[in-house]
Amino acid sequence: MKLLRVGTAGRERPVLLDPDGTLRDLSGLVADIDGTLLADEDALGRIRRAAAAGELPALEAAGLRTGPPLARIGKIVCIGLNYHDHARETGAEPPAEPVVFFKAPDTVVGPDDTVLIPRGSVKTDWEVELAVVIGRTARYLESAEDGLAHVAGYAVAHDVSEREFQIERGGTWDKGKNCETFNPLGPWLVTADEVPDPQDLSLRLWVNGELKQDGTTAEQIFPVGEVVRYVSRFMTLYPGDVLNTGTPAGVAMGRPEPKPYLRAGDVVELEVTGLGRQRQVFAQA
Amino acid sequence: MKLLRVGTAGRERPVLLDPDGTLRDLSGLVADIDGTLLADEDALGRIRRAAAAGELPALEAAGLRTGPPLARIGKIVCIGLNYHDHARETGAEPPAEPVVFFKAPDTVVGPDDTVLIPRGSVKTDWEVELAVVIGRTARYLESAEDGLAHVAGYAVAHDVSEREFQIERGGTWDKGKNCETFNPLGPWLVTADEVPDPQDLSLRLWVNGELKQDGTTAEQIFPVGEVVRYVSRFMTLYPGDVLNTGTPAGVAMGRPEPKPYLRAGDVVELEVTGLGRQRQVFAQA
Repeated sequence: MKLLRVGTAGRERPVLLDPDGTLRDLSGLVADIDGTLLADEDALGRIRRAAAAGELPALEAAGLRTGPPLARIGKIVCIGLNYHDHARETGAEPPAEPVVFFKAPDTVVGPDDTVLIPRGSVKTDWEVELAVVIGRTARYLESAEDGLAHVAGYAVAHDVSEREFQIERGGTWDKGKNCETFNPLGPWLVTADEVPDPQDLSLRLWVNGELKQDGTTAEQIFPVGEVVRYVSRFMTLYPGDVLNTGTPAGVAMGRPEPKPYLRAGDVVELEVTGLGRQRQVFAQA
Repeated sequence: MKLLRVGTAGRERPVLLDPDGTLRDLSGLVADIDGTLLADEDALGRIRRAAAAGELPALEAAGLRTGPPLARIGKIVCIGLNYHDHARETGAEPPAEPVVFFKAPDTVVGPDDTVLIPRGSVKTDWEVELAVVIGRTARYLESAEDGLAHVAGYAVAHDVSEREFQIERGGTWDKGKNCETFNPLGPWLVTADEVPDPQDLSLRLWVNGELKQDGTTAEQIFPVGEVVRYVSRFMTLYPGDVLNTGTPAGVAMGRPEPKPYLRAGDVVELEVTGLGRQRQVFAQA
């Protein structure tokens, strides 16, 4: 299933995207798309049955904003330097074990919402990523297979990053990863049954129409199931938590000087195979 | 006011602690103690007036668990190496600007709840801290005075830390800061009007009855208002967000070998002037 949330920010309603492109209103069936829903097989089954029976009312898509496809995110755990090609371009050794940092859930916006370049920023960068949404509590998992079994679904994430704040201002990467609007998510939460192989997805990102990132999750150093297993040994993952699993090569930081960091007015588009497409206009905060 | 939440985990009710030590049930007056309440001067005023008028029912304290004093925490922004004496004991230079890392809100437990030593951990360490609770949205603040004006109140926080996970496993500190139960908070949220000078508070921590940390917020490199101002330049702080403002000297990591890291069965007690006292028994996860 492709689940999404449409409406004004903070007042989105849950929606199912039919295979034929029709939006189907789920607000009569479930309260919202969040960890509680994803952990509830009965509720997900009700949606499937109602969709199969043609019982869900159609919703007119015209003029509707798409919000993030997941409400009440508990935490966003991010994996750094998780693509062989991206590690090479940044000059870093491939990490021996996953690099972990955080984004706060309040950085999440819809896939087409405006992204704000922070005041004082000169190094705002892009990062297309595969986001993994947790569906079952994951704690001290033993295997990558078990890791995958705890995944409810997938989405496109834009891990917007300010490189000076991240790297040159002391402390950890979190300082450059948590500016407001820095995590566009969606358009859809695609349930795991529709993503047979999360290690065979193309990720692409364009700036002002020019292709900048063109990668594949086959390049991930630590694949999705292993990332879930690994993280679960350090912290408990709960339904509705999100993992941003890293970005492939092609970011501004990895390019020759003068590096083409983002400026107000730039348009960034990104997509992951089967998970939909985002488009953001950047503006000054 | 001293606000707290009592009851079983996940089902706490909001309570006021009278100056005479009586617990007063607030559940007839407000839904919970969270960012929504802290941002609502009218609701806080209703509590003050009801307390002054003697209208709040007393609650029998015996046998009641104390939960964390704040529900629905948005994010927990932590400041590392923020005490001159702690920076010295770890061998680090005092940072030129605040070191920022994150704890996930799901690490928060009540002040006297069991803390779990992670599986595989051999370096679980203690850190008594002053927690600052945000009451108004803070975004690109200009002054430390304005930073202080965005603080709703204060609490005791225990920033439990696994040093191997934090420092020796690659990536950022977050990996050693987010194990389950690693952020006991409370017992009380003390409103800012009762803390005339947040830079004149004693912090103490004992392990098995032996005093290990005995510091003062006067040693903070970046005082509370400056921390709020600084962080607000990198990320937006919302009502109900928490800042853990760093720990003074005396942690296990700063001692000679063999360093006295925590083991199952150890009892940690900690307190901050006027903010109450915590007591945790450590157990194996």
